[in-house]
Amino acid sequence: MLIKYGVNHHLPPYNSVIGCLVAPSSILRRQQFLVRILGGFSSQTYQNRVGGIRSMAACGVEADAESILRAITPALESSKHKGQAGKIAVVGGCREYTGAPYFAAISALKIGADLSHVFCTKDAAPVIKGYSPELIVHPILEESYSIRDEDKSCVTQRVLAEIDKWLERFDCLVVGPGLGRDPFLLDCVSEIIKCAQHLNVPIIVDGDGLFLVTNCLDLVSGYPLAVLIPNVNEYKPLIDKVLNCEVNDREANQQVQFLAKQMGGITILRKGKSDLIGDGDIVKSVSTYGSPRRCGGQGDILSGSVAVFLSWALGRSNVADPRISEVNPTLLGCIAASALLRKAAGAAFERKRRSTLTGDIIDCLGRREVTRAGISSPSYSLNTDERGLSAREHL
Amino acid sequence: MLIKYGVNHHLPPYNSVIGCLVAPSSILRRQQFLVRILGGFSSQTYQNRVGGIRSMAACGVEADAESILRAITPALESSKHKGQAGKIAVVGGCREYTGAPYFAAISALKIGADLSHVFCTKDAAPVIKGYSPELIVHPILEESYSIRDEDKSCVTQRVLAEIDKWLERFDCLVVGPGLGRDPFLLDCVSEIIKCAQHLNVPIIVDGDGLFLVTNCLDLVSGYPLAVLIPNVNEYKPLIDKVLNCEVNDREANQQVQFLAKQMGGITILRKGKSDLIGDGDIVKSVSTYGSPRRCGGQGDILSGSVAVFLSWALGRSNVADPRISEVNPTLLGCIAASALLRKAAGAAFERKRRSTLTGDIIDCLGRREVTRAGISSPSYSLNTDERGLSAREHL
Repeated sequence: MLIKYGVNHHLPPYNSVIGCLVAPSSILRRQQFLVRILGGFSSQTYQNRVGGIRSMAACGVEADAESILRAITPALESSKHKGQAGKIAVVGGCREYTGAPYFAAISALKIGADLSHVFCTKDAAPVIKGYSPELIVHPILEESYSIRDEDKSCVTQRVLAEIDKWLERFDCLVVGPGLGRDPFLLDCVSEIIKCAQHLNVPIIVDGDGLFLVTNCLDLVSGYPLAVLIPNVNEYKPLIDKVLNCEVNDREANQQVQFLAKQMGGITILRKGKSDLIGDGDIVKSVSTYGSPRRCGGQGDILSGSVAVFLSWALGRSNVADPRISEVNPTLLGCIAASALLRKAAGAAFERKRRSTLTGDIIDCLGRREVTRAGISSPSYSLNTDERGLSAREHL
Repeated sequence: MLIKYGVNHHLPPYNSVIGCLVAPSSILRRQQFLVRILGGFSSQTYQNRVGGIRSMAACGVEADAESILRAITPALESSKHKGQAGKIAVVGGCREYTGAPYFAAISALKIGADLSHVFCTKDAAPVIKGYSPELIVHPILEESYSIRDEDKSCVTQRVLAEIDKWLERFDCLVVGPGLGRDPFLLDCVSEIIKCAQHLNVPIIVDGDGLFLVTNCLDLVSGYPLAVLIPNVNEYKPLIDKVLNCEVNDREANQQVQFLAKQMGGITILRKGKSDLIGDGDIVKSVSTYGSPRRCGGQGDILSGSVAVFLSWALGRSNVADPRISEVNPTLLGCIAASALLRKAAGAAFERKRRSTLTGDIIDCLGRREVTRAGISSPSYSLNTDERGLSAREHL
């Protein structure tokens, strides 16, 4: 119970957490990170962290995305077993939307996660399952139209009991792709977000999940493992609600920073021509040229990608490399995901041009080589060589 | 009835079984094997078998998997008819899981079985059917949520009556991929396992099937045609339950052997960096280099593969080759399946690297040629040339 609900916001001493050997390593890892970020830092560690961030910032606002992507990608090793490269879950998929959660979940697998789950409504499940046998799809959510008012409380409890069986196994939760805006469903998802926080599971919020948290900021405010990834239409109401002003494109960096700070140090990835990523301490941009095609669904690839890279960054936060250990893993995850999506989109556009669809971009997520056209630099590959060596050694 | 229920555990004299010409050849074949293994061995035959095993063991714990794979693969002959290369059934697939039974069943076909059935819940059936028109999918199982308590007994009888129509036709039954853990469903599946034993149908247990048998060891203990294929997370509770101790990786071979012996001579395939396969008499390993990717679903390929190779090994247990006739066919089937999966995984990884998914590996199961990279030797091909010559002649 200590492991399950006792850590968030009321963290036990670092050593007592370390001593809890019964907890899965991913849970311990997240706890250790939170202990450090929320109060466990020694003055020296904090200075190192600030120093790391400053040295990162000294390179200019544009992130060295290639370098970060290489640094946080874990080596593929034969001794590892299923699940150790990442277990991701997407909460989304309703009567109207089924493509978005599929795109997010399959992208996570294509990037290198071992397991990818989707929690969606009963109507959406058979369709999402049908897209790919690679996903594990849980038909547990309900929308208002399918239940009576007097059953709502009972249904909410059933949904939470069901998701509670799974939640602590996940390395990251993506909330929002294809979620829809049904009030009852959103109420349930609010409870799921609270549970995930209790378990210190990182939360990526996108799509209709942003509608939800914009209208209930407390759901994620102050949670250092929360990442919001708004597009231009989702960013505007967020700025309006939190900062009570309009979007200021001339001082976009500062505004992202201020937004992140005002929300208690969560991470914001503002999608645009350049992606801006800020956690209140630092803001970085990723401007790798991708594709001019704006077909729907690319944001879903991004949310699934952030989930994987964030969990990888957290998993490597104890390594000696100061580029990793002294920088917020949410920031690193966003930078890597943004860069990879842009490169994959560029590779897909080169082949399919104006007819490029989201599925074409997903097909390119794992491509080893892409040609130059439309891409500012040779595409990153997450692959290893035939000896199973780390991707980091081959870029 | 003698043929149907009289053989297991109370075997009739060898000659009387041989004399039952009305029985399908696959049933006779299994009976002959069981008669030999359970008591029909003459002293000389037993000595030969022990000798065969010893000579196999003399080569070291690493199996000569390539050689075994070739030896047990039956020739493709134009005179054969549908079904003779194997009829496999998978029991699995529920509201949550549909990918796993599909992977197991389609892998069996891709390796060379003629017919592949899936017995799953009503919810799962349309989805699994949708993955492929090649499979025969029976929507006969029920989960607790869909039936009333007072109907359970009646539903169980209906399920058993339905499966009883099919069971004796199968050369092997795979129990567990995507089965889920619904108590009522697992009760039904327990009965199916008992029926399969009565009919001497080999049973491969994986996934949630292992959860079931770990909690009810009697279901498979002492049945020489049972094979359990646990991964690291499934092996641990099995060791705990049967041997009342912890997993000992330093003496892994001995522990697999002891586990198999304690469970009455069933076969254990412990998945890992090297797969360990033991039947209580002998333990072998398969360490062919495959892939460092650990995406979910590879275990399902393995379970479908073991089913095919085990049925082929049983079908060839009367040939003169002592590598086959004097070694436990369950052991041979596991060794061949393990080697083939590893080679296919290696071939897929060579093409897709970190973005390799289980479907990519299945696509490689029948590839004739794979390049060297990542694979310790030229890949085995199950194909024949256009003249229909035996696969064994083309390796």
